[in-house]
Amino acid sequence: MIHTTTDASPTTSPAWQDGHKGTLETGRDLLADVSLPAAVIHEAPLAHNLAWMQDFARRHRAQLAPHGKTTMTPALFRRQLEAGAWGITLATLPQCRAAFAEGATRLLLANQLVGRANMAIAAELLRAGGELYVTVDGRDNVAQLSEFFAEAGLTLPVLIEVGVDGGRCGCRRDEEVIALAREIAARPGLTLAGLEGYEGVVHGDDPAARIRAYAERLVADVRRLEQEGLLGVAAPIVTASGSAWYDLIAEAFRDGGLEGRFTPVLRPGCYVVHDHGIYREAQRGVLSRRPDLHEGLRPALEVYAQVQSLPEPGLAIVALGKRDIGVDQPPEPLVRYREGGDVETPLSVDGWRVTRQMDQHTFIALPRGTDEGRADDVRVGDIVAFGASHPCLTFDKWRRIHLVDERLQVIDTWETRF
Amino acid sequence: MIHTTTDASPTTSPAWQDGHKGTLETGRDLLADVSLPAAVIHEAPLAHNLAWMQDFARRHRAQLAPHGKTTMTPALFRRQLEAGAWGITLATLPQCRAAFAEGATRLLLANQLVGRANMAIAAELLRAGGELYVTVDGRDNVAQLSEFFAEAGLTLPVLIEVGVDGGRCGCRRDEEVIALAREIAARPGLTLAGLEGYEGVVHGDDPAARIRAYAERLVADVRRLEQEGLLGVAAPIVTASGSAWYDLIAEAFRDGGLEGRFTPVLRPGCYVVHDHGIYREAQRGVLSRRPDLHEGLRPALEVYAQVQSLPEPGLAIVALGKRDIGVDQPPEPLVRYREGGDVETPLSVDGWRVTRQMDQHTFIALPRGTDEGRADDVRVGDIVAFGASHPCLTFDKWRRIHLVDERLQVIDTWETRF
Repeated sequence: MIHTTTDASPTTSPAWQDGHKGTLETGRDLLADVSLPAAVIHEAPLAHNLAWMQDFARRHRAQLAPHGKTTMTPALFRRQLEAGAWGITLATLPQCRAAFAEGATRLLLANQLVGRANMAIAAELLRAGGELYVTVDGRDNVAQLSEFFAEAGLTLPVLIEVGVDGGRCGCRRDEEVIALAREIAARPGLTLAGLEGYEGVVHGDDPAARIRAYAERLVADVRRLEQEGLLGVAAPIVTASGSAWYDLIAEAFRDGGLEGRFTPVLRPGCYVVHDHGIYREAQRGVLSRRPDLHEGLRPALEVYAQVQSLPEPGLAIVALGKRDIGVDQPPEPLVRYREGGDVETPLSVDGWRVTRQMDQHTFIALPRGTDEGRADDVRVGDIVAFGASHPCLTFDKWRRIHLVDERLQVIDTWETRF
Repeated sequence: MIHTTTDASPTTSPAWQDGHKGTLETGRDLLADVSLPAAVIHEAPLAHNLAWMQDFARRHRAQLAPHGKTTMTPALFRRQLEAGAWGITLATLPQCRAAFAEGATRLLLANQLVGRANMAIAAELLRAGGELYVTVDGRDNVAQLSEFFAEAGLTLPVLIEVGVDGGRCGCRRDEEVIALAREIAARPGLTLAGLEGYEGVVHGDDPAARIRAYAERLVADVRRLEQEGLLGVAAPIVTASGSAWYDLIAEAFRDGGLEGRFTPVLRPGCYVVHDHGIYREAQRGVLSRRPDLHEGLRPALEVYAQVQSLPEPGLAIVALGKRDIGVDQPPEPLVRYREGGDVETPLSVDGWRVTRQMDQHTFIALPRGTDEGRADDVRVGDIVAFGASHPCLTFDKWRRIHLVDERLQVIDTWETRF
């Protein structure tokens, strides 16, 4: 079973003993009772995104195995599985272990499994009943895995990773894929369960065309493996897709007629809370290619922080640092409230400009006149909601994340498992 | 009491239940038994650094309150306090709470205390017997703190932050410092315990001269507060210094004749594990200014990771990402070992060049010919030690950090409390 923090739980331990960033345990109003900075997920857009992407996969006759590395939040894994996800994708064995311990039993490691200590964790998961798939892309690693799992008396399902020149991992040539499949078939301890790819490393002119071609290559390769009898399982897996080009992958899988004989699996991760930056841009691309998809995803993750100093005209220092929020791009001030104020009366952040970030501080250039005594002037203690990009690098800053409703009341507090 | 992981503890819980990045619990050899990537502290340079900085402070007749935000590792706080540290500096109230829960009772918040939820944590710490100092730099915040702590029946010791034009927080003018001190004296719930500054935001031509002048300003200001009878405690605190210019601050404090009447406090944080980047450069600056200090600090923090793929000639993909190591600068490959190999037979990383990092991967351009079958060729599974900069942004990636001896045997596994 997946364990989540119950509503009562946060109030039972003395606030100063838990050793975490976190809430003031007696309160539930984000604008009054929660120690800030704090990471916050809004329930309404979260629920929308969960349903939206599951529906997207269903309409393309693909399974969904959301990339769990994004959030490493078991409560979100539970929500994803309850919404219909086929499994959870992860990037490391300790991540797989954490997800499995919280109830996710079908795990897709979209990465090579390297190192005997990590193999030992994989063996534990298999022995405990986990369904685990890992990727391979070379003979050396296949030999290492075969030796370890054969010796352990286990069979590890592997997916061959299909890569591109100048990309990341993965076999560059189709002939390498076939040769590696033969190598896997010839060795004990392994079974070939399908193909894996990641289109996020496909670059060049006309990326959409290149990504379509890459997805079609995956489809063609898995058909060839099938024809040559090199696949060791029923309904072998064909999987790709990050959070930017999943529509192209889904279309190619759908149009490749995989249904029935193969298991097409999509693996977006960021969709669950979406984004205020690079993936918002990417989503605009998806919607421009696919006007039938309507609206799309909604950003659900924000970090709330307070103005801590107004040391000179035009400058606000906010208690929000690189320790608190992803910094692939400067965080985006979204809205401001008075501490203890009402969600119905937001204050402006028009013209606010993040000029610098340090470990624990954000510098904001204020528009002229906004700190000079008007009713909506900026005050020390004002609470500012920030959007970030991308979400992976905000989640990993936090051990606890607050789920809030539309009135910014805390519904639940979720633990992360990085 | 400070609780650290005992030698036995890591072996007692099932590996797949703890939900953390971490060790294979049955093994202790970093090159054979530990799930990588992993963050590692080397004991010998750590012990050297602890003694070195404590001796530095002693020789300058200053107290040491290491900045704990760097590591948020209670076992390191204990080592720092055992080495003679006066207290621990922190950046947020949840950090103070975590340090206090682990036995650090004198806490210096080198930051403004903003927000009633954070004030409530401070009140808990004071009621539990903690000695806590926080900074203030404006009338609004002083009013907020006074109202809260007077109502709570507590007295909060505050330090006025002295800032610079274009800097971060802090009063820009000496007259503001004096006016704020009068404000504090006039209000209930607060007592003025001294002055705080941070020279890391002093910039311009001849930074050493500017920083000396800034430190002298702190000394002059605290003397003036003393003369005007505005200080509320015996032996008031004068504190500054990060990890780059601490020598100049220490000299100015020593030469300012503070001894006996004031408590000069230095607050470097990164020194404890030092650095492979910006603070190594800074340390060269310290040693060029102060040849009497000999040798200086030694880098003690590394992240070990494994080659996971050799997908095309000249390219190695290492299982090490932005999730695992600070990326203020690209991580620096230091040395390589065969998995299961011996620390006595390191392999070369000469000419290795980090070209790109993703969340879970590092791309390395290999020198020509190093992946073509020589005895020391690069193989999948090879273990590479990486140095990073700066350490704050590596520590916060980990919930556990391994302490190792010179043979890379794990001595202890420490938990972080971010």
